[in-house]
Amino acid sequence: MADSDVRADKKVQTMTDHNVYDSDQTDDLPSNWGRWGDDDERGTLNLITAESRLRGYAELASGEVVSLAVPISPSLFAGGGPWPRSQVLSPPPVQQTMTYTGSPPRALSDVLLIYTHHVHMTHIDALAHIPLDGLVYPGKSLFETTRGGTINHGSTSAFTGGIVTRGILLDLAPGARLDAEYVIHAADLDAALERTGRSLEPGDAVVIRGGWRVREREDIDDPYPYFALDVIQWLADHDVSIIASDVGDRVLSKPGAEIPLHDVALARLGMPLIDGAEVEELAETADRLGRWAFLFVCGPMPVQNSTGVPVNPLALF
Amino acid sequence: MADSDVRADKKVQTMTDHNVYDSDQTDDLPSNWGRWGDDDERGTLNLITAESRLRGYAELASGEVVSLAVPISPSLFAGGGPWPRSQVLSPPPVQQTMTYTGSPPRALSDVLLIYTHHVHMTHIDALAHIPLDGLVYPGKSLFETTRGGTINHGSTSAFTGGIVTRGILLDLAPGARLDAEYVIHAADLDAALERTGRSLEPGDAVVIRGGWRVREREDIDDPYPYFALDVIQWLADHDVSIIASDVGDRVLSKPGAEIPLHDVALARLGMPLIDGAEVEELAETADRLGRWAFLFVCGPMPVQNSTGVPVNPLALF
Amino acid sequence: MADSDVRADKKVQTMTDHNVYDSDQTDDLPSNWGRWGDDDERGTLNLITAESRLRGYAELASGEVVSLAVPISPSLFAGGGPWPRSQVLSPPPVQQTMTYTGSPPRALSDVLLIYTHHVHMTHIDALAHIPLDGLVYPGKSLFETTRGGTINHGSTSAFTGGIVTRGILLDLAPGARLDAEYVIHAADLDAALERTGRSLEPGDAVVIRGGWRVREREDIDDPYPYFALDVIQWLADHDVSIIASDVGDRVLSKPGAEIPLHDVALARLGMPLIDGAEVEELAETADRLGRWAFLFVCGPMPVQNSTGVPVNPLALF
Amino acid sequence: MADSDVRADKKVQTMTDHNVYDSDQTDDLPSNWGRWGDDDERGTLNLITAESRLRGYAELASGEVVSLAVPISPSLFAGGGPWPRSQVLSPPPVQQTMTYTGSPPRALSDVLLIYTHHVHMTHIDALAHIPLDGLVYPGKSLFETTRGGTINHGSTSAFTGGIVTRGILLDLAPGARLDAEYVIHAADLDAALERTGRSLEPGDAVVIRGGWRVREREDIDDPYPYFALDVIQWLADHDVSIIASDVGDRVLSKPGAEIPLHDVALARLGMPLIDGAEVEELAETADRLGRWAFLFVCGPMPVQNSTGVPVNPLALF
Repeated sequence: MADSDVRADKKVQTMTDHNVYDSDQTDDLPSNWGRWGDDDERGTLNLITAESRLRGYAELASGEVVSLAVPISPSLFAGGGPWPRSQVLSPPPVQQTMTYTGSPPRALSDVLLIYTHHVHMTHIDALAHIPLDGLVYPGKSLFETTRGGTINHGSTSAFTGGIVTRGILLDLAPGARLDAEYVIHAADLDAALERTGRSLEPGDAVVIRGGWRVREREDIDDPYPYFALDVIQWLADHDVSIIASDVGDRVLSKPGAEIPLHDVALARLGMPLIDGAEVEELAETADRLGRWAFLFVCGPMPVQNSTGVPVNPLALF
Repeated sequence: MADSDVRADKKVQTMTDHNVYDSDQTDDLPSNWGRWGDDDERGTLNLITAESRLRGYAELASGEVVSLAVPISPSLFAGGGPWPRSQVLSPPPVQQTMTYTGSPPRALSDVLLIYTHHVHMTHIDALAHIPLDGLVYPGKSLFETTRGGTINHGSTSAFTGGIVTRGILLDLAPGARLDAEYVIHAADLDAALERTGRSLEPGDAVVIRGGWRVREREDIDDPYPYFALDVIQWLADHDVSIIASDVGDRVLSKPGAEIPLHDVALARLGMPLIDGAEVEELAETADRLGRWAFLFVCGPMPVQNSTGVPVNPLALF
Repeated sequence: MADSDVRADKKVQTMTDHNVYDSDQTDDLPSNWGRWGDDDERGTLNLITAESRLRGYAELASGEVVSLAVPISPSLFAGGGPWPRSQVLSPPPVQQTMTYTGSPPRALSDVLLIYTHHVHMTHIDALAHIPLDGLVYPGKSLFETTRGGTINHGSTSAFTGGIVTRGILLDLAPGARLDAEYVIHAADLDAALERTGRSLEPGDAVVIRGGWRVREREDIDDPYPYFALDVIQWLADHDVSIIASDVGDRVLSKPGAEIPLHDVALARLGMPLIDGAEVEELAETADRLGRWAFLFVCGPMPVQNSTGVPVNPLALF
Repeated sequence: MADSDVRADKKVQTMTDHNVYDSDQTDDLPSNWGRWGDDDERGTLNLITAESRLRGYAELASGEVVSLAVPISPSLFAGGGPWPRSQVLSPPPVQQTMTYTGSPPRALSDVLLIYTHHVHMTHIDALAHIPLDGLVYPGKSLFETTRGGTINHGSTSAFTGGIVTRGILLDLAPGARLDAEYVIHAADLDAALERTGRSLEPGDAVVIRGGWRVREREDIDDPYPYFALDVIQWLADHDVSIIASDVGDRVLSKPGAEIPLHDVALARLGMPLIDGAEVEELAETADRLGRWAFLFVCGPMPVQNSTGVPVNPLALF
């Protein structure tokens, strides 16, 4: 068979799935492209001001601190003997090896290897993480963005100064969990917001609880509650600055899934996402205190030019 | 020459330097071994209470946030073309490569490789980082601590819940910098504390500024201000919970140096250290506001069982 | 500006260069697609038989062994102290760190990090290394080939049994080097072959010397002798099984370059390439012995499913 | 409890096991320290000459090639989606990730991470791999050897030119396998050698088959045939240059095991070891051909200054 025939046969198989919200739906979907200029890299973080922080300070009362991150037990990429010591899920989010530091060792040291977007690890997605029709927020070409094999625009560089604002917990299933098949809509967020006794202000951070943990699913394709598109519109309407959640998009192994949190909130609104947050302790604390607003403080490891980094956001009460 | 003769000749060369504060000086040096029990892993973080945080909250006024970390520009361990693109200092603190994610890429992702104690990177030292006579705080054997090739005691696991307390900036050279040859004593800290108008309370975090940046030194052995031993006694007397600084110990390339911040404060007091902090912006902000006390918030990447991790501590005003 | 307008503007910038030999030139260029079936993964290695090896054995006479690989001095990704110790070109081909193995260390061990196609490292390219219009030899889709984030077809798996055959050195500039601007044509190979006193047989390996070392160039875009397209036709006509060379394609930093060794020999002929071979010692040995044919023996590190691995091919005389 | 009391209690726990053949047994055990000078780095490879290779050439007859390495299927350290795709033994010998190379990808490339002494991977041990009483062959201090965090003496640098000599297969259990509890003695090697119809000459390589595969054991401490000390004396008496085997030392998880192949042959004789060789196909080929001598050709990846590298030794018939 001539090469050209083979090529024609296979062409359809070369395309992976892509952001399904690009092409025709431009005018219907919320977008912040251009809102803060053509070179903007901070997206909805631009909505956070000193007033946002003062609003968060006003919520401080009793001194509790709750981490919104899942502790990660690293597996080893070397060491502990030259034989395998355990079985682990692969790839893992973090791997470690201790380094040789003399005999006797002057200090103990190590190296960490981090797979930045692993679903089992609480991490922040930078704005360049999800392209939209070959462009990244707010319209930079993929080519320019990735020139030199690193991220030149919309990277984690935008986060190095820290992210501090008022946070509100929207617990969608207080004291329980959503059904596995549940589709989350804007009305669910409204109901949860009402329970907090607060109104959202532009620049607030939102933490959403559905009561599920990705890492406890046996199979990546098991059912899992997820956001419908109108949730993203709700986030846009409220000018939320950043979202952390235990539920959001369904990450499926087959291509073609609709993932509006990534494909619309991140890619079009320029809203950083904190994936895989741990929210159970936050919900219990909020219930106990009878308060669902707090100071949200996130100091990401200040590595620039990356697509994401692990984070440990803290909720201060 | 018989093997035994060769071995006798070389024995003296097999020993690297060690913690010079171990052997005979036990009774003279400050120590917290046993203060919180034989299995304690939190060291001076035990001194932080809700009251510590409320004390920090009381300092909040205007909404500024200052990062105490150096932004890190990663070098590449692969990518950007199969040829070398630049010259870099090696080893670097962080390396990156972007991963293949389909054609076209569904998302942009990467891997980060982190050398946890690199002097050019703001990082937190876990208590196990510095052994003392073959033991780590508060007396666990090196063997048990490193069994399995990871850190089983006194690791970064103690930090995953976050570190939040009141912080005080001790600027040793306001608007200037210390001389390269300066040796810092307790009296210098007293003077700086007085300028803050605050008294230190047990559990407070201390940030110290000498006006120097490790990463700007040409050669690791260039002179650099450092702490004398009495500074450590001062930290112990004030029951400081954690210290971040731009100066502290001199890291020298030749063994045998006295490094009391690591060898006494960390190893004996169980005080976590934040090495290589960036404090210039903090000092400028404090000067401008006329306030040197703030809320200190640190949410380290929650990787357990490691000797240290990069951090981005935030000072909230 | 509406998103669609921005997208239209940028589209042209999203395309990187591609294999310029794909589209229209199919019928004019040499190709082995389909010659050994639609699922073939060995390409021109199929031409090597026991007879090829016997032909190589017939060349053995005096017992010399010459390595065709550049020794690699790894840089460190950690260790040797927590400060940078040197300046290195980045990314480097190989990085090392020694691992912690107890106190005192029971054994000394390390980890190596290898960037498989680094131009300063002698390595073998697997057939999947260069796609042709979204397909890899002999017509598998990129999608299928890279499913699961590894190489499922045309990978280094084809090399794990070793590559042993007769080898012929074609020294294009005996005792000298080609001009920097020289374009190498089939006639140059014919002349060099004549000097060897041998005829090429199907299955032979060819080693080509131009007298240049990639790693000695200051800048990747400095002039460097390279193959014209007719050299590839010559390799095809002679049914060469594998090629190792110090010259071949010009690797340029700007896209669009014509690289027929990779884009035609590898991608269309299914001919594995050994890039960045070290051939000076081979040439000197051949001259001294007055023999340019030898037994070519290559035992690549048997890692499967990769795009390439470092190699150390040996020429036995 | 005062620190000094704690330290006394724990001292005995700080020592890991060490090379049990060091102290008093010097004069009874075979050693090559000093035989080739105090700065020698090649050990028993010094015994290989052109004559060794000619002896190997004389065995060539029919053109078969057998690899003595286990093919390695790498696991992923990133890629294939941001979720874990499989369960693997950890740490694994090799990990891979494919790198981002543009959209569409100009080429497919990857990075490999190699744990050099993993028992499931065929690898060569450099002479510095096993210290002897704080010294490495032929008497260099550990301190000097590891200065700068890399291997300065007795490293893989000695192997970059390739290792080519005659090889002899000693099949200890033709057509069968040794009992799990079998202890291998010199007499077993004599019997196997006799079956080959050859005498060993200084400089020959020896490949030993017991019929076991490390990687097929469920637990590292399951019984496994191993060498008694007199096997090492036999290797010394015959001036073997290098040994590859499927059996040899028992690698146990608890310290204190006697491992004479590593602790005496490698550390005292300066004999490089190829651990974890795959010998079944070699034995079958030898049986079929009725010949157990061959040309042994090993071209290790030419990475210098390491403790070991993966290898793919080839046996040519």
